[in-house]
Amino acid sequence: MSARPTPQHRLADPAAPARLAADFRRVRALTEALAAPLSPEDQCVQSMPDASPTKWHLAHTSWFFETFVLAGPRYQAGWEFLFNSYYQTIGSMHPRRHRGLLSRPSVAQILDYRRWVDERILATLESGEAGREALALIELGLHHEQQHQELILTDIKHALSLNPLAPRYREPAVGPVIGPPALRWIEDPGGLVQIGRDLHGDQAEFGFDNEGPRHKQWLEPFAIASRPATCAEYLAFIADQGYARPELWLAEGWDAVSSQAWEAPAYWIAADQRWMLFTLTGLRELDPDEPVCHLSYYEADAFARWSGVRLPSEAEWERLAEGVDPARGNLVPLTKAELERASLHPRPCPAPIDPASGLAQLFGDVWEWTASPYSPYPGYRPPTGAVGEYNGKFMCNQLVLRGGSCATPADHIRAGYRNFFHAPSRWQFSGVRLARDAP
Amino acid sequence: MSARPTPQHRLADPAAPARLAADFRRVRALTEALAAPLSPEDQCVQSMPDASPTKWHLAHTSWFFETFVLAGPRYQAGWEFLFNSYYQTIGSMHPRRHRGLLSRPSVAQILDYRRWVDERILATLESGEAGREALALIELGLHHEQQHQELILTDIKHALSLNPLAPRYREPAVGPVIGPPALRWIEDPGGLVQIGRDLHGDQAEFGFDNEGPRHKQWLEPFAIASRPATCAEYLAFIADQGYARPELWLAEGWDAVSSQAWEAPAYWIAADQRWMLFTLTGLRELDPDEPVCHLSYYEADAFARWSGVRLPSEAEWERLAEGVDPARGNLVPLTKAELERASLHPRPCPAPIDPASGLAQLFGDVWEWTASPYSPYPGYRPPTGAVGEYNGKFMCNQLVLRGGSCATPADHIRAGYRNFFHAPSRWQFSGVRLARDAP
Amino acid sequence: MSARPTPQHRLADPAAPARLAADFRRVRALTEALAAPLSPEDQCVQSMPDASPTKWHLAHTSWFFETFVLAGPRYQAGWEFLFNSYYQTIGSMHPRRHRGLLSRPSVAQILDYRRWVDERILATLESGEAGREALALIELGLHHEQQHQELILTDIKHALSLNPLAPRYREPAVGPVIGPPALRWIEDPGGLVQIGRDLHGDQAEFGFDNEGPRHKQWLEPFAIASRPATCAEYLAFIADQGYARPELWLAEGWDAVSSQAWEAPAYWIAADQRWMLFTLTGLRELDPDEPVCHLSYYEADAFARWSGVRLPSEAEWERLAEGVDPARGNLVPLTKAELERASLHPRPCPAPIDPASGLAQLFGDVWEWTASPYSPYPGYRPPTGAVGEYNGKFMCNQLVLRGGSCATPADHIRAGYRNFFHAPSRWQFSGVRLARDAP
Amino acid sequence: MSARPTPQHRLADPAAPARLAADFRRVRALTEALAAPLSPEDQCVQSMPDASPTKWHLAHTSWFFETFVLAGPRYQAGWEFLFNSYYQTIGSMHPRRHRGLLSRPSVAQILDYRRWVDERILATLESGEAGREALALIELGLHHEQQHQELILTDIKHALSLNPLAPRYREPAVGPVIGPPALRWIEDPGGLVQIGRDLHGDQAEFGFDNEGPRHKQWLEPFAIASRPATCAEYLAFIADQGYARPELWLAEGWDAVSSQAWEAPAYWIAADQRWMLFTLTGLRELDPDEPVCHLSYYEADAFARWSGVRLPSEAEWERLAEGVDPARGNLVPLTKAELERASLHPRPCPAPIDPASGLAQLFGDVWEWTASPYSPYPGYRPPTGAVGEYNGKFMCNQLVLRGGSCATPADHIRAGYRNFFHAPSRWQFSGVRLARDAP
Repeated sequence: MSARPTPQHRLADPAAPARLAADFRRVRALTEALAAPLSPEDQCVQSMPDASPTKWHLAHTSWFFETFVLAGPRYQAGWEFLFNSYYQTIGSMHPRRHRGLLSRPSVAQILDYRRWVDERILATLESGEAGREALALIELGLHHEQQHQELILTDIKHALSLNPLAPRYREPAVGPVIGPPALRWIEDPGGLVQIGRDLHGDQAEFGFDNEGPRHKQWLEPFAIASRPATCAEYLAFIADQGYARPELWLAEGWDAVSSQAWEAPAYWIAADQRWMLFTLTGLRELDPDEPVCHLSYYEADAFARWSGVRLPSEAEWERLAEGVDPARGNLVPLTKAELERASLHPRPCPAPIDPASGLAQLFGDVWEWTASPYSPYPGYRPPTGAVGEYNGKFMCNQLVLRGGSCATPADHIRAGYRNFFHAPSRWQFSGVRLARDAP
Repeated sequence: MSARPTPQHRLADPAAPARLAADFRRVRALTEALAAPLSPEDQCVQSMPDASPTKWHLAHTSWFFETFVLAGPRYQAGWEFLFNSYYQTIGSMHPRRHRGLLSRPSVAQILDYRRWVDERILATLESGEAGREALALIELGLHHEQQHQELILTDIKHALSLNPLAPRYREPAVGPVIGPPALRWIEDPGGLVQIGRDLHGDQAEFGFDNEGPRHKQWLEPFAIASRPATCAEYLAFIADQGYARPELWLAEGWDAVSSQAWEAPAYWIAADQRWMLFTLTGLRELDPDEPVCHLSYYEADAFARWSGVRLPSEAEWERLAEGVDPARGNLVPLTKAELERASLHPRPCPAPIDPASGLAQLFGDVWEWTASPYSPYPGYRPPTGAVGEYNGKFMCNQLVLRGGSCATPADHIRAGYRNFFHAPSRWQFSGVRLARDAP
Repeated sequence: MSARPTPQHRLADPAAPARLAADFRRVRALTEALAAPLSPEDQCVQSMPDASPTKWHLAHTSWFFETFVLAGPRYQAGWEFLFNSYYQTIGSMHPRRHRGLLSRPSVAQILDYRRWVDERILATLESGEAGREALALIELGLHHEQQHQELILTDIKHALSLNPLAPRYREPAVGPVIGPPALRWIEDPGGLVQIGRDLHGDQAEFGFDNEGPRHKQWLEPFAIASRPATCAEYLAFIADQGYARPELWLAEGWDAVSSQAWEAPAYWIAADQRWMLFTLTGLRELDPDEPVCHLSYYEADAFARWSGVRLPSEAEWERLAEGVDPARGNLVPLTKAELERASLHPRPCPAPIDPASGLAQLFGDVWEWTASPYSPYPGYRPPTGAVGEYNGKFMCNQLVLRGGSCATPADHIRAGYRNFFHAPSRWQFSGVRLARDAP
Repeated sequence: MSARPTPQHRLADPAAPARLAADFRRVRALTEALAAPLSPEDQCVQSMPDASPTKWHLAHTSWFFETFVLAGPRYQAGWEFLFNSYYQTIGSMHPRRHRGLLSRPSVAQILDYRRWVDERILATLESGEAGREALALIELGLHHEQQHQELILTDIKHALSLNPLAPRYREPAVGPVIGPPALRWIEDPGGLVQIGRDLHGDQAEFGFDNEGPRHKQWLEPFAIASRPATCAEYLAFIADQGYARPELWLAEGWDAVSSQAWEAPAYWIAADQRWMLFTLTGLRELDPDEPVCHLSYYEADAFARWSGVRLPSEAEWERLAEGVDPARGNLVPLTKAELERASLHPRPCPAPIDPASGLAQLFGDVWEWTASPYSPYPGYRPPTGAVGEYNGKFMCNQLVLRGGSCATPADHIRAGYRNFFHAPSRWQFSGVRLARDAP
């Protein structure tokens, strides 16, 4: 079996604990930096069952380390119940929809809890006694926390948007506006390709269990857009009565349009003759050049149908992403310069963090709905134990999104990443990239 | 019509503005004292549509003065929308069920708002230029704020009770426990009696519009219990399968029992072989001698039926209350000493405020459900203008409660007071006093 | 106690069984005549939980006699469960909202069931061996069945109204149209009056338990309208933006208007520039002279407020009704001729049945909402046993209606009758008569 | 393009109209034979929004022919609204959940409607003047009607099951009971295979649009069970606490188990120490040898996980089905005799209709959940016009089922057939066949 390295292989590097400790400090600090602009009340509200209060995210990400890595007595009786998200095999849990009622513990108490966890995890890493399994769980916990960093932003955006005062998460930054590049169609001959991650290979970087195994798939020739659709393009769909023509919509999509009176993406607000956007930096006028965002799957699909094309499958999307990844070949004729200039996804490698705010790159572009239902790759097996609940049990009635958004930490983005949400969801930074069959 | 003084008569006293200013300082301070033990997060949560966040109460009571008394520009654009409770004639309002989403404005901002309103109202009172109508509205606003003082306590009790950690509003005080007096039946010959308040008389104290006019009513002879029912008495009802016998219940009451699986009053928690109570000072064992509390009307009614008697009408209840009121005669043979010893309602006059906490007398006994639907007294007319929405528009599908609870400010209690809630409500401090026809 | 005749007194008349047998034949036949125009499918549908399928009414009224009068084995196992309406002390019951799923037993099987019950009840009456209690229960069962005769009509009207084909219950009859008399205000000095029925007196006619006992009540001087309001009068309320002015409505009424988008009474259908009515004889144009009908309590109350007056209490209404009843005096200056000419309620005595259709007098005017919550009269005691559930357990959150409608069997109408429905209900033939305080 | 025959190719056969006329008579008669045991009331009830009344199926299948094939005036104004199922491009439609309120038109009127449509369609076919497109639509309409034949049975089964009397659709037939064959694992080497139907080929039989186009897919080696799972096998899952172990379930599956208190498949009724089944022929004891049926996708998936294996993909399932189809090769070592003996699906060719009842083969085995979300095959295009709404717009949040059930008309079953339902659905005859990766 020496030919099949396990996760422990990568973590067997003697430098691994020190590297993880540095990552741990950085990731944990960013989470708190994201919460810092928010008052205790902001951090307590829950605007819908899908979203969680900021302070719950602060606590749950700590619960994850405490539960899966630390031994010994719990920090506080009852908290294992409050901050368990959905791990049934760990025990029962507070109902998700009631997280906003937890005025206690306070933000201050939860920050104390974070300190307590931080000390113990760092001590474990620095002791040199952490086994490979513990290292793997700490690494998993950091990627888990990065997911919640994005959710802190999407969830508070939703909550603030429901406040008639339209409050700001932070002040808007003034930056250069760069128009989008012209849309080009990038062709791919298809054939018997490979997608997914070999999570057990010699050179394997971290990936969630659902990103593997790497496996064969047959693709017919196709073409895929060189960038996500813009608001200008989506406005043409709206102007052509896109929201009033049932023939453009999936049946369940049309039900959503009708019952919820959708007339535009989430956070678009009609105001005499123009569209305003509610953003984390306040209300502002919509920019036709920015990627269209906060679409449900239904809207992405209807927009594609109206455009006479379709959504890409996740295999097609991943072909594009890998094509620009130097580590995997160069199947796609995008130049690195092109990518950097437009600063549009997919980003093949992490961009540097803005040193000024610690938040740079959190604002940019969008997750892209694919046409692929979220299903296990052939040969997928969830890990044993409670962490097996992480990804596998959600593989039903959701769709895969690819790419990473402006709210995704830069070093959390990778070509093989499979995000997933329900078709009606709109509170994530979700947009659309078009694809089509080769002629 | 000179024989019929208007509200302005009482307020025409030259000392009225100074007295109101003192009341204003005292009442406003008590509201903030009630909120003081609560964190910003505690003050933000809303546990059900019926209840409101503490900070919303802090703001709304200020909105009331700003809206009805002050002229000139509003304190802050948009707040008149957020903090309007239900005054349709003032304008539209934020949906009640979404009050818990208002993380902004913060508690601190709302306290600033209170200061701003306080200064202006006090300036108005001290200027000597306030007209009689303004004085009447300030007086109304103080009584309005006292209602919200009670709601601050009932609403946060409900919210905290849903937290699995069972947090405390404040630490329990240790005090002498006084057993209840034996229950006696106080007889009344009935006949053509008068109830209600003459709100326009020469000697008229303040009363809400719904407490008048004073009017005639015919009563058959009846008897009424000398005190509310105790937990011990209610436990006998439970032990006799009271919650499992439909013949004891109103049809809608039985539906509530069945659909909500009621087995005891709200806040009773079964714990191996005994009952625990969730209270504002934490979980504690139930005391069989305390008045039974947090009953719905349905439970009060079923308990009375099981007891072979009935609930009093509000006229019967008021006869009892007036009987012990020296100002109105002495029809009922209760001695003042009896009343004071047991510290049970109805209290004919305000008890002194506990100088230590400023909260004294807020914890004690219960509002008492009557059998009387909340309807206008004969000849009732709501005031003109928006304050006419205060009481009149709720006169449907609610029942009158009398007496005042441990959470009612002591100087807000009076014999003619008509509180009202829907039959299934249990989050108020609501109990039961029995009555019966004369034999 | 010989001075206090019991119900048995009236039924002790040796002719009582024969009279009851004749009544039984007549009432049971009318029920089936009402169902006759309906197909088996019509008789099976249930359009909302409040309404029941026709064939369920046919079965339930038979279940009543079988359950309360007949001894011996039941007709069919399981049917006592299906056709119990709400008698918890008899046993459990099929959920009300699922009555429309009972495709079996068929209409034909239920008619067989009726035959079986008829034979046994008539045999009981004709045997001369029925005790007084049995006679009383048969008499009660006939009045119970008459209530369901009205419900057959109101419930099928609701069901047919939801069919886009707007089908007819029966063909319209052509008759003389009589304009309404001018509205007059009938004054009453009030004072200490008596209302309610003495159900145990020597001369007592049948009355439901909730109609008694007769008792004293104090009334202030008042005036009451000589007839119900007409559509013309109600149209003026609509034209004056009655449905758009919250200050005219009870708070819960305004919620209903807003959430259900009410713009007119039930069954009014706006059709280019005019109002159409859905009726049991099909769609037709609204006649401004007919009594306004299918109002909720909220609408009746708002209309009264808009009119500058109020709804009558049930005591006031009964004063009017008794005033024209020769048996009770002549307090009110209405002539019998006036009443008969307009064919408007209250009818002091039953009108003759139309010999042609057996349905005469089923179409005419309206139940009238009063301002009185449905509460027990002083001294009211429900009968012991399961029939005690008949009326008493509904005495909460409903309002009393008086008078009887076009769908009420003529000999089921009486001055003391207390009908009751929830405030939002509109599917009954419910209208409004105005009242006001004496000047 | 002569190399790519269109649907018209098959229908260009001069014998096609006569063959279609014979099919038309047979299929239309079977629909009515299926409704014949049901009373008018049975045919009117709707037990849930997913299900439709029998008579609605009778009318809708006729509406389909009238709408898509016949020209000229409609049969009856308003019916195009009532009997449109979901074709938005045809016009608006009666809300699905209200179909059970349509007591009119009656069953008799709908049968008249069927006669009217029958005459015109047969006249069209016999005239020799029907164009190829009309022939294609008639053929589509027949397959559409066969789908509704199955729904007539599944929908009335659900409705009757809610009747506490547990009525029968028809009397049980007594037949030989044949035990299931032992479960064998049939291995398949996988590789680059082809699945789906070439709907435009020279030899193309009829298939729905969603069954094509035929396309390549890569399969890893796998094994698939030789028959569906039996009740005995499923009972072992139940006995092993399958319904109480969240680790066996998809997250949404566990939510369904918890919120709906599932403890067994639909229609299983626990009765002292044994399981009863509600069936179309009444309540009877469960036979451990029969295929387990009325499973949701969640249950099928949990059962597979508990079994240590998984569900097949639809490609794997189709490989098995094609393997036993002489027209496609013989990859799978099942003998035809084996298949016929056990009478288990997949049936490679239609079985003969039972001449006695016209219903033969309607009772037998189960649709089999696959792990494949219902998505378009690569290159799929819906037809233009309203029939394009037939299949394509439902390709979201549903799972593919394969095989055909005991309620599927025998000549409606084929290897490429893609049925689809939502994961929680249990009212179809849905079971489970296991699969696994090759070792």
